[in-house]
Amino acid sequence: MKRNLLVISICFFTHGLLAAEFPAPRRASEPPIISPEVHADRTVTFRVRAPGATNLTVSGEWPNGTMQMNRDDGGLWTATVGPLEPDLYGYSFLVDGFRTLDPSNRWLKPMRSPTTSVLDVPASQPMLHDFQSVPHGTVSLHEYQSKSLGRLRSLRVYTPPGYNQRARVKYPVLYLFHGSGDNEATWTALGRAHLISDNLLAQGKVKPMIIVMTDGHASFAQPAGTNADARLRNTAAFEQDLLEEVMPLVEANYRVKRDAANRGIVGLSMGGGQSLSIGLKHPELFAWVGGMSSSVYNPENTLASTLNNPTVANKQLRLLWFACGRADFLLKNNQEFDRLLNTKGLVHEYHETEGNHSWPVWRRYLADFMPRLFVK
Amino acid sequence: MKRNLLVISICFFTHGLLAAEFPAPRRASEPPIISPEVHADRTVTFRVRAPGATNLTVSGEWPNGTMQMNRDDGGLWTATVGPLEPDLYGYSFLVDGFRTLDPSNRWLKPMRSPTTSVLDVPASQPMLHDFQSVPHGTVSLHEYQSKSLGRLRSLRVYTPPGYNQRARVKYPVLYLFHGSGDNEATWTALGRAHLISDNLLAQGKVKPMIIVMTDGHASFAQPAGTNADARLRNTAAFEQDLLEEVMPLVEANYRVKRDAANRGIVGLSMGGGQSLSIGLKHPELFAWVGGMSSSVYNPENTLASTLNNPTVANKQLRLLWFACGRADFLLKNNQEFDRLLNTKGLVHEYHETEGNHSWPVWRRYLADFMPRLFVK
Repeated sequence: MKRNLLVISICFFTHGLLAAEFPAPRRASEPPIISPEVHADRTVTFRVRAPGATNLTVSGEWPNGTMQMNRDDGGLWTATVGPLEPDLYGYSFLVDGFRTLDPSNRWLKPMRSPTTSVLDVPASQPMLHDFQSVPHGTVSLHEYQSKSLGRLRSLRVYTPPGYNQRARVKYPVLYLFHGSGDNEATWTALGRAHLISDNLLAQGKVKPMIIVMTDGHASFAQPAGTNADARLRNTAAFEQDLLEEVMPLVEANYRVKRDAANRGIVGLSMGGGQSLSIGLKHPELFAWVGGMSSSVYNPENTLASTLNNPTVANKQLRLLWFACGRADFLLKNNQEFDRLLNTKGLVHEYHETEGNHSWPVWRRYLADFMPRLFVK
Repeated sequence: MKRNLLVISICFFTHGLLAAEFPAPRRASEPPIISPEVHADRTVTFRVRAPGATNLTVSGEWPNGTMQMNRDDGGLWTATVGPLEPDLYGYSFLVDGFRTLDPSNRWLKPMRSPTTSVLDVPASQPMLHDFQSVPHGTVSLHEYQSKSLGRLRSLRVYTPPGYNQRARVKYPVLYLFHGSGDNEATWTALGRAHLISDNLLAQGKVKPMIIVMTDGHASFAQPAGTNADARLRNTAAFEQDLLEEVMPLVEANYRVKRDAANRGIVGLSMGGGQSLSIGLKHPELFAWVGGMSSSVYNPENTLASTLNNPTVANKQLRLLWFACGRADFLLKNNQEFDRLLNTKGLVHEYHETEGNHSWPVWRRYLADFMPRLFVK
């Protein structure tokens, strides 16, 4: 009995040390921090403990998105924003100018340089990006050693609900690209592409499709130059990886249709530049081409073969669609691209919408674009 | 022609603004930061820009793992550690006492409170946790609305190579749990369980198995109390979610064998407490039970029915295995649990090894434990 009591007392003794030795466990005297805390009126309180800091702000994707935080005697900084419209928002803290994610929030935006957390302000009714009581698809992670890039790369693939039960059905594929700050995980973690597809399917608004989300940073593993030459080199390297590695991997491992009429390609910002560039360079591979808030470089040169033979491309393309927010810093770029396509006679749709260069806009664009795909 | 030139010039003009508007784009004057940089001699340089900070350290899972960083005139802080043994290590920066991950490193440890980045120091020959040129399995992400917890929960499932090609084969299942600071993604992102399985399979050392990785934080969405009562409540809530939600979800969606002889359960730290507690409470469900650096609470009470009927449990269990590092703060807890099982006459293996409470140890334990599973 003595031995048994000893066991129990030791177990209780160690409970304060249960966090891994690295990083150091939180001291018992420090209460847990709740951040972000979404209140019933859709105001949101952010909290962060930083006793050594002299200035802290929170900034996020909502309108007028920066606010000073206030410090209490214990070094806990607090700010309350809103009420905010129901949506998902990225946000960061600036700790004496050092940009960081919220260390109390497990939900973060996958990024090349991770500094952003995710705030979910729910609506009274579920939104299109919410997990709803409908059949759900699956997101699968893949890694592959890219021969063309000489590097290990990551990939996410969404299969629609029922994929595993319908062993003879082949599906169309949408290749979906992220922006400059993101990586292959961002379209699911923050873009919620998988849930948007689940919900649109349940509403009967889209065809079941496989969605392939790649890592758009092909020519550099670490942040590198962002000048136009570097971007064009990156797009070229990305195109080679996509055509020679990603598409064969997807077509070998998933039941996908392999003709242009069953392939779509779309992306946002940098990824919109990639989807428009690669799609319009290869209308024989992709009949459905889109761009969201796209940055298109030097299309006169890179897309010359298509732009100068619009009749061929107009026959091959089933949809050329791009959109940009009126408050987006890339608006002029998109307007010029629209004019160029008009000049050249390439049939397309260009949509100007509300919004700026942010994920709330891109989730809406995905919901606008997907129903247009793979229809007669 | 004038119009075309205009397009090009606008495209070039915007290239400096290509990052999303939120967070603010890096200024052109700031060169990109490479961190961590692993040198040929396996020393590693860390860099972080924090002009407003007065003190910065880096600390990680390697021996003597804390080092002061030095500041240059531009506010870039640098430190070089090592040479380090080839391995994967978690590490953090302390910016004036504020713990943060490395904002220049996309590879981070999935955590309940994300503050840790991942450093990969490669060996001259690939290690067991490295992506190698062998057949690869797939990791799939699932979300589910837990009825018992009333919350949306996340889950990762590894299927071994060939799973999709062998449509009539059913597999045994290993339920694999994480530690207190982690979440359901940590066993793949930092634990590399999927690659360890791929490599052990290629070496013929393990049976093909499905691995299910759940979120161990069942009774609270945010950090909550860490006292023993809270832990026991969490384990009880976790057990209910596992048995009533996770196992049915897995068995409905994957081709798995459904008898105890084809179910294993193991975890690390908090998750080791969960796997030992749930496994020994339910030997009729799990014939293979393990624990890594486990924290076992109050086993006399929670496991009374099994401990007081060792003959029954000894017949049902095929393996009861647990291990702890000699430098682990939970060593005494594990030694006491070993003594308790001896006293009660429950057949088991207890291994004391080199190492402390860290992921390099747990990856080795997984490689030790998996070959023991599902054998005759």
